Amino acid sequence: MRVLGVDPGLTRCGIGVVEGSPGRAVLVAVGVVTTPAGDPLGSRLVQLEVAFEAWLDLHQPDAVAVERVFSQANVRTVMGTAQAGAVAITCAARRGLPVALHTPSEVKASVTGSGRADKAQVGAMVARLLRLDSPPRPADAADALALAICHLWRAPAQARLAAAVAGVRP
Amino acid sequence: MRVLGVDPGLTRCGIGVVEGSPGRAVLVAVGVVTTPAGDPLGSRLVQLEVAFEAWLDLHQPDAVAVERVFSQANVRTVMGTAQAGAVAITCAARRGLPVALHTPSEVKASVTGSGRADKAQVGAMVARLLRLDSPPRPADAADALALAICHLWRAPAQARLAAAVAGVRP
Repeated sequence: MRVLGVDPGLTRCGIGVVEGSPGRAVLVAVGVVTTPAGDPLGSRLVQLEVAFEAWLDLHQPDAVAVERVFSQANVRTVMGTAQAGAVAITCAARRGLPVALHTPSEVKASVTGSGRADKAQVGAMVARLLRLDSPPRPADAADALALAICHLWRAPAQARLAAAVAGVRP
Repeated sequence: MRVLGVDPGLTRCGIGVVEGSPGRAVLVAVGVVTTPAGDPLGSRLVQLEVAFEAWLDLHQPDAVAVERVFSQANVRTVMGTAQAGAVAITCAARRGLPVALHTPSEVKASVTGSGRADKAQVGAMVARLLRLDSPPRPADAADALALAICHLWRAPAQARLAAAVAGVRP
């Protein structure tokens, strides 16, 4: 299974692709898409859309995982995250790809064992799990990979749960 | 000038199209796009995208105005508003249409003279300005028309300001 993870942001959007199965992940590609802060919002969202389409075309993932933001101190930051995430989710759903949303604490817990792990710890574990020499830079890139790994770990359990629930329903 | 206004929301998204010039507006079309709360987020955003594309194809606006959300009590609501708005903005920008963001208080001030007007007052003024027998229902539809009227009123002044600023710059 190949998963494309997106750490959404207007200024810097992390994208990471991993392939594998629960407990085993291999790095396929990682990068950061940036848009100029001075550009109109519409232009920035279209730039992100063009980049997402290119990543989806090139890497043909089986699923897309996007960070779910529940609450954040700065509403302005939340808005940019939500807007960039919405474009990623729309690009994936338009192709019929399953889209999963994972919270930052779910992602941290998946890769480090603790939902309260810091950025450095997440980066270190991403490097260890993918057998890289050092944590991917910048942090947005590492976060996107952590999100993709989290989905790889969790998706089979979630699918079994959904199937079980569907099975008991009439 | 023809303006398409969007009052963004995942569950109910108001869309209104008006044509005219400052001080004079005519209703072209108004409606509400809904998506089922139980559908996956990606599916809901794609349903909105399909609807926006159909409205843009049919009404060929010169500009699109979307509500700008600065702060709201409920982060969950803000997220849905931001996500639906991002899809509308992306659809417009992809076609090269200018996209304007106006805050709720700018919209209220434009159509009622007061930035703190309530929903009923906005609906009543939208009906009066567009010479309708009664305020458009639901409120999301009236809000989308108010947004489009606000842009019709403000756009020429904003364009003159932008031209003046560009003129004094080297």
